[in-house]
Amino acid sequence: MVNSERALIRKIRLQARTRRNRSVVAGIGDDCAVLRLPSQMDTLVTTDFSLEGVHFRRDWHSPECVGHRCLARGLSDIAAMGGVPVAAFLSLALPGNMRQVWVNRFMTGLLNLAGHYRVALAGGDTAESLQGILADIIVLGTAPKGKALLRSSARPGDRIYVSGELGGSAATLEQLRNSPAKKLRESQYPRHFFPEPRIELGRILRENGIASAMIDTSDGLSTDISHICEESGVGAELEQETIPRACIGEPSRQVDLSFALHGGEDYELLFTAAPGKRLPQQIAGIRITQIGKITRGNKIYLRDASDIKRKLRPQGWEHFSK
Amino acid sequence: MVNSERALIRKIRLQARTRRNRSVVAGIGDDCAVLRLPSQMDTLVTTDFSLEGVHFRRDWHSPECVGHRCLARGLSDIAAMGGVPVAAFLSLALPGNMRQVWVNRFMTGLLNLAGHYRVALAGGDTAESLQGILADIIVLGTAPKGKALLRSSARPGDRIYVSGELGGSAATLEQLRNSPAKKLRESQYPRHFFPEPRIELGRILRENGIASAMIDTSDGLSTDISHICEESGVGAELEQETIPRACIGEPSRQVDLSFALHGGEDYELLFTAAPGKRLPQQIAGIRITQIGKITRGNKIYLRDASDIKRKLRPQGWEHFSK
Repeated sequence: MVNSERALIRKIRLQARTRRNRSVVAGIGDDCAVLRLPSQMDTLVTTDFSLEGVHFRRDWHSPECVGHRCLARGLSDIAAMGGVPVAAFLSLALPGNMRQVWVNRFMTGLLNLAGHYRVALAGGDTAESLQGILADIIVLGTAPKGKALLRSSARPGDRIYVSGELGGSAATLEQLRNSPAKKLRESQYPRHFFPEPRIELGRILRENGIASAMIDTSDGLSTDISHICEESGVGAELEQETIPRACIGEPSRQVDLSFALHGGEDYELLFTAAPGKRLPQQIAGIRITQIGKITRGNKIYLRDASDIKRKLRPQGWEHFSK
Repeated sequence: MVNSERALIRKIRLQARTRRNRSVVAGIGDDCAVLRLPSQMDTLVTTDFSLEGVHFRRDWHSPECVGHRCLARGLSDIAAMGGVPVAAFLSLALPGNMRQVWVNRFMTGLLNLAGHYRVALAGGDTAESLQGILADIIVLGTAPKGKALLRSSARPGDRIYVSGELGGSAATLEQLRNSPAKKLRESQYPRHFFPEPRIELGRILRENGIASAMIDTSDGLSTDISHICEESGVGAELEQETIPRACIGEPSRQVDLSFALHGGEDYELLFTAAPGKRLPQQIAGIRITQIGKITRGNKIYLRDASDIKRKLRPQGWEHFSK
């Protein structure tokens, strides 16, 4: 195991060399990575599991897709703070019988995305797993001191916005689940297979003082808005008709409302802004939609086209382990 | 799953509140943790898996021990850079049928060690695992700019030192393996069950300019010295008779040489120092032993009591998955 681990580390190190970031003083190959982050900056840290059978399946997801999604989860958390990503760390445990080509393609998917955002792969850990592929991605980023956008700063009266469209990822998963034998064309379902973290949008929302609170839609709208409400001590009212629903497949079809409300892993940004702010319809080429407002209290309501209000419970996001 | 995950996060957050660190601006409860690290410092980052069946077994290791060892792995990497740990992040995936009491005791073990070194648990991730307990610990620390002790700075002529005693952890494991039904008294095998990361020693070795290169003995002496040699482009000659062997059990017995040479997870510090340096026999209450010297070339030799030199191959450390 140790020898194959060594070979794996050497391989990863070699691949990672092509992606550099000047904040990384020492990367893979020591007890710790050494980073020199700009002063006047706060450091952002996020960690996210990608577990086979829980977050992905080898028969549904290409190795490149798994690598891309693994890092995208972390980058999206940095985006949700309005931060700039700097370095990633990968803890990777593989079953003993793992084929090298899978690992190479996984690393390619991960490092292509890292290169796009100038994120260095600066370290991590390797191990042999007893079952399945286990990855944990750690991303470090920066935001100017005290300027990171938290979940806890939404105020009653703030408007609620979401970027892009919702439900595309979960609806794709449903399709995979219903016809597991049929391979989907990944290019027709990009939001599921190759989600693009909203790094630039997040940075713009912070730099221009637009957003008051922000989160990424990794757990699904109903859960993610409940996180903002809980942390900010507020309630919310969402307008059902305004929630932007994703279109997926070929021919393209709009997803059901339930996916947009409860489906996770869209990695869009959900944010609030003071009522006086005027927002353009697009920022950084991404559609921005007002979908409701923050209220006093702690309840979350959904108002439908007939003006009927009902409580919206966080239904959460169970990946596909059940 | 989401509800139990939420409960778990709430529980961890509550437990983690008792351990604070003023560098943590925002901890658990947002997309990222926000840290404000002192300027003039480099940031150190390390990640380490603790996987059930690979790094620990529930029938051999108490939950407190697993939690302690999980964090100790990361702290030891910070120690090996001469750094000061600041914050830890825990990614934790649990099987669906996990008992809450195990998790509570695991967290107690982890947080007790964190408290001892004033390390905040500032974030992480939770998930449901399909098999076994999967933990990944991330530790962030600091060292003054450019002063972190690397593996790559050993020079020919440098003397090689090791802290404490070696082989205790692996020999304990062997005993567990040979009589799996018999519970060992954890207090009689502290280096295996509750290893103490050498944070203070590492800091002293850096601050006083004593060590030229350093690593922690997590993979075993033969492998760890090979890491230093590989990264520094040098060779080494170790004196077999000087290698300090651990004593374990009650009555206490000294472990075989092979454990001291190849057994991992002792979490001692292995370091080099220029030949002119005079080192005390103890630093921070921990025994320091000179065990050899760095040579030109890239070969590693072991010289026995009869002055016979043989090549020392890194035999590595396979935990106990095989």
